[in-house]
Amino acid sequence: MPSLIERYNDPIHEARARLEGYLPPTPLASSRFLSARAGREVWLKLETQQPTGSFKARPALNGMLAYHEQARAAGVVTSSSGNFAQAVAYAASELGVDARIVMMEEASAFKRERTESFGGRVVLCANTFAARWETTLRIRQESGRLLLHPYDSVETIAGDGTLGLELLAQLPGAFTVLAPISGGGLIAGIALAVKAARPECRIVGVQAQANPSMQRSLEQGKRIASASAPAESLADALSVAVPGESTFQVAQELVDRVVLVSEEEIARAVRLLALEQKLVVEPGGAVAAAALLAGAAPPDGSPVVCVLSGGNVHPAVLSSILGDR
Amino acid sequence: MPSLIERYNDPIHEARARLEGYLPPTPLASSRFLSARAGREVWLKLETQQPTGSFKARPALNGMLAYHEQARAAGVVTSSSGNFAQAVAYAASELGVDARIVMMEEASAFKRERTESFGGRVVLCANTFAARWETTLRIRQESGRLLLHPYDSVETIAGDGTLGLELLAQLPGAFTVLAPISGGGLIAGIALAVKAARPECRIVGVQAQANPSMQRSLEQGKRIASASAPAESLADALSVAVPGESTFQVAQELVDRVVLVSEEEIARAVRLLALEQKLVVEPGGAVAAAALLAGAAPPDGSPVVCVLSGGNVHPAVLSSILGDR
Repeated sequence: MPSLIERYNDPIHEARARLEGYLPPTPLASSRFLSARAGREVWLKLETQQPTGSFKARPALNGMLAYHEQARAAGVVTSSSGNFAQAVAYAASELGVDARIVMMEEASAFKRERTESFGGRVVLCANTFAARWETTLRIRQESGRLLLHPYDSVETIAGDGTLGLELLAQLPGAFTVLAPISGGGLIAGIALAVKAARPECRIVGVQAQANPSMQRSLEQGKRIASASAPAESLADALSVAVPGESTFQVAQELVDRVVLVSEEEIARAVRLLALEQKLVVEPGGAVAAAALLAGAAPPDGSPVVCVLSGGNVHPAVLSSILGDR
Repeated sequence: MPSLIERYNDPIHEARARLEGYLPPTPLASSRFLSARAGREVWLKLETQQPTGSFKARPALNGMLAYHEQARAAGVVTSSSGNFAQAVAYAASELGVDARIVMMEEASAFKRERTESFGGRVVLCANTFAARWETTLRIRQESGRLLLHPYDSVETIAGDGTLGLELLAQLPGAFTVLAPISGGGLIAGIALAVKAARPECRIVGVQAQANPSMQRSLEQGKRIASASAPAESLADALSVAVPGESTFQVAQELVDRVVLVSEEEIARAVRLLALEQKLVVEPGGAVAAAALLAGAAPPDGSPVVCVLSGGNVHPAVLSSILGDR
């Protein structure tokens, strides 16, 4: 049986070819302040510069392009806490596809407004993971729409993997990637792409203490559902019911470590990234920097990449974090 | 007599060679939201990603490296509204040089704190351009320090010119650059570098209505002092007594146009850059985007680069701009 890396090799390279005309590689910026604090070269992968302000443009476009005929004929449906929602709305409008996006009533109003501003039709549901998934499946069944899974499909993971290919082109040698984990699509894609070319690179996942689904699942060797509804956390982008099946399998094999960060560490990272690095990063997108500031880098002093996965933070939340000392 | 472009050609390329080990090229990010609003390709040159959060790291390092022996032996002195101050403090600490930086008592406290955090010694003076310049010259005379001019010297303009060389490497073909003007060093450096290689490119300068020194000077064909003290403006980085002699000469010859933006337009650009582009840009660094949003791009639909020259905005100011609708 081919290894995971072998199985995903073609899908990741196909994804890169599909996305080429749509998404230029995002910048990799060097960070003086984080390098000084971490005592090593620190690079920031600016997924905040994607068209919808998060890495989700990659998997949304890849999924829709991979099944373009079905998507155009029947439309697409997905469920999201907000960043995949915006990305699907954006991709749908780029490709002339009709999109329904299921979000919980209590999901970020900011992300909902932005999703609608990209032309997406939002369908609201009750505030549990089960209700969201049932609504999504019902819409698919009634309408024959293409279901775009936010993290657990080959196309999603392969779309996320294009980020890993960009890192390989942007940085020589061995490095450690710190990246957020929600359902696990992003970290799986990066791990598959990076370790295929440079097995000496390390992949460290980061979750909020409030939502440690992947960390607990890896600890116990099986997928653990952490809660029925999103946990109270600044990092709304990282709320998830349970790790994906495929993403959990990839994480078991290829993710070196998962670390947790507190709400206070997350807020501090958002604040420092804005004031020192001049970047607007949402709490869920800042956990990699939070982990680095909390000492999560490997002891050998090798270069680190923090993936800043998204920047869709409500202005009032950002204002309040900027006001804290 | 050689043309201005010929005279600056070697200094700009020497500057690039000097800076190479210190400052990697800053990212050029594509902007979906500005492209949509301006109906053309819009690129953002992220000088906010320089080590001190503004383009000033280029001229500070270039000046100090060009006269490194004198700088190490006697130290340096300069005057600044705050961004050159931070950059000189940073460059001095990188190169083991002692720095005195003259700032007005009412200059941005945020920038003063940051200058000191980079290891710079700040000397305060009264709140007029004359007092600042006299204090600077007195310190030079008493101490024999190397004077680093914030905008009007060959090394400063050549250091700024390295930004233009990066644009030529990052973008093919003809484009229009929109860049802020304070003393004029940045726009002069960019114009000299870009037009040397591609005379078909256009260079548009942007100033705050509150501080239209270069625009008025160009209109009247001679350097006009606009005020004795900094004007009330969000764009503190753009306050200046009078355009430089050399920078005025370059602007007369190579800058296609200078446009003015209102305080409201500046605040709106800062807000939109944070919420839509996920970038923290200070008011003075956002005037190019403000001008673009106000319709300053050339009518032919050619690609535009907005230089986002700095991001050193006080968190309280940013919070307040984010709170506005």
